[in-house]
Amino acid sequence: MKLKPLFDRVVILPEQKENTTSSGIILPQTSQEAPQIGKIVAVGDGESLELDRTGMKVNVGDRVLYNKYAGSEIKLDNKTYIIMRQIDIVGVIYE
Amino acid sequence: MKLKPLFDRVVILPEQKENTTSSGIILPQTSQEAPQIGKIVAVGDGESLELDRTGMKVNVGDRVLYNKYAGSEIKLDNKTYIIMRQIDIVGVIYE
Amino acid sequence: MKLKPLFDRVVILPEQKENTTSSGIILPQTSQEAPQIGKIVAVGDGESLELDRTGMKVNVGDRVLYNKYAGSEIKLDNKTYIIMRQIDIVGVIYE
Amino acid sequence: MKLKPLFDRVVILPEQKENTTSSGIILPQTSQEAPQIGKIVAVGDGESLELDRTGMKVNVGDRVLYNKYAGSEIKLDNKTYIIMRQIDIVGVIYE
Amino acid sequence: MKLKPLFDRVVILPEQKENTTSSGIILPQTSQEAPQIGKIVAVGDGESLELDRTGMKVNVGDRVLYNKYAGSEIKLDNKTYIIMRQIDIVGVIYE
Amino acid sequence: MKLKPLFDRVVILPEQKENTTSSGIILPQTSQEAPQIGKIVAVGDGESLELDRTGMKVNVGDRVLYNKYAGSEIKLDNKTYIIMRQIDIVGVIYE
Amino acid sequence: MKLKPLFDRVVILPEQKENTTSSGIILPQTSQEAPQIGKIVAVGDGESLELDRTGMKVNVGDRVLYNKYAGSEIKLDNKTYIIMRQIDIVGVIYE
Repeated sequence: MKLKPLFDRVVILPEQKENTTSSGIILPQTSQEAPQIGKIVAVGDGESLELDRTGMKVNVGDRVLYNKYAGSEIKLDNKTYIIMRQIDIVGVIYE
Repeated sequence: MKLKPLFDRVVILPEQKENTTSSGIILPQTSQEAPQIGKIVAVGDGESLELDRTGMKVNVGDRVLYNKYAGSEIKLDNKTYIIMRQIDIVGVIYE
Repeated sequence: MKLKPLFDRVVILPEQKENTTSSGIILPQTSQEAPQIGKIVAVGDGESLELDRTGMKVNVGDRVLYNKYAGSEIKLDNKTYIIMRQIDIVGVIYE
Repeated sequence: MKLKPLFDRVVILPEQKENTTSSGIILPQTSQEAPQIGKIVAVGDGESLELDRTGMKVNVGDRVLYNKYAGSEIKLDNKTYIIMRQIDIVGVIYE
Repeated sequence: MKLKPLFDRVVILPEQKENTTSSGIILPQTSQEAPQIGKIVAVGDGESLELDRTGMKVNVGDRVLYNKYAGSEIKLDNKTYIIMRQIDIVGVIYE
Repeated sequence: MKLKPLFDRVVILPEQKENTTSSGIILPQTSQEAPQIGKIVAVGDGESLELDRTGMKVNVGDRVLYNKYAGSEIKLDNKTYIIMRQIDIVGVIYE
Repeated sequence: MKLKPLFDRVVILPEQKENTTSSGIILPQTSQEAPQIGKIVAVGDGESLELDRTGMKVNVGDRVLYNKYAGSEIKLDNKTYIIMRQIDIVGVIYE
């Protein structure tokens, strides 16, 4: 990853929808606003944009559930990533 | 539960509407915005998204009343959960 | 009352409109947005949702005047209650 | 007055428009949004709804000018009062 | 002036438009939103409505430029005044 | 300048568009929302309207770039000035 | 660069779209709201506009990814720059 996010942002590599069944979590077909799954590939220094606090709750490598419409897509080496704030990550998935 | 919520979020397993009568609480038919009942299955570390404070008011296993349109639905192992912030839980139900 | 409200919320049992005349307070007919009267049946721990402060100004048993459109209705044992934040209670009525 | 306002609210008994000429203050005919005159009949404990501060700037008996659309009307013993926050009182009138 | 403003409000006696030319400041004809000129006739205690600070930047007798749509008009002894918050005064005019 | 701005406001004398080419900065023709250039002719005491801080980043005589739609126009001695808050000044131009 | 930004603003020289392929980052064709790439040419003192904190996360010379609709365009010596707040820079690109 050649991108260092600023503040409390993270870079996420979204999972392909085909893989999600094997992981045990299946996003509902009916809801278009369901959270998505992806892997954290880069994190900022954790300084909040609104509060006087600093800290990241996720690490590189974490598999996370994030709000569908959060962040912005970027392309790097033919992969599409999403850069968003950590407050838009709703939870960490563990096995 | 294989999902750890971030910040002051919780994961709730909603009760089926058929069960609610036996519990003594019946949601009004007329109001479509009535709070719902469910069970807490996972909690975050309680750090608030807006304030410099940390703390969870609910625990795993609590039966709670929550705002109908709060949070997002997720599916895991064929069950549908709702992930929301604890401020959208209006109260804890005890027997 | 089998419901413990969270944060600065209260549970209110609304008075029937027929009773309000004997109590000396009559809500105006013309105004549909007039405050309502009810009795506090449960209170939260008083932690504010927006400020770093904690405290309840009302107690179980208080007869209060509250904003008409505040809170949400819930039904329990065939009674309809309203759960709202204490900042939506405009005053306490005493005899 | 059988009503104790909560937080920084006050109860005001509005003056009849006919009396206002003798007091020296006449509300403009043309402006429908002109402040109104009334007398404070009850005050809360002064705790602000938004700030960590407490204090009332008005006392029972004060004659005040208040924003026309502030607060809610209530009827008690055939009189109509207005309950509002003290920040909606623009000034105190003295002779 | 028989009116004591609350918080950070002031009472202003607007200047007649005919006088403004002699003072050296002429409001533009083209802009309907241009600031107006008036004289401070009463000031509050300066406690801010939003911040935990207190202080008035203007004194009775100051000639000021204020935002046109700020505040509310009141009539007293056949004169029309404007009551507004001091943050809506953009500057003090001196000779 | 016979006007002392309040709080964190400044008074700016806008440059004529004809002069801007010689200064090396040319505002784009295509963008109607491009920042404008002017000279600071008066500054307030720097107390912020929203935060508990005080300080001016610009001085009388500074040539600055400011947001086009910020502030209000005033006319003084046949010149048109703009009074605005310092947070609407995007930068200082130096030679 | 003859422009010193105020507060937490930066001046960015946007990269030409033709160059971005060689850098390894390609902005998606489909998304019109994709972040853009540019080089920091000037930075402010870092004082935040909303918070009581000061600090810049980027330096002159950094290659950054920034929100497409952030800031304002300015022209200087026939080059078009963008001036924006550092919170609109999503990340720093390194090789």
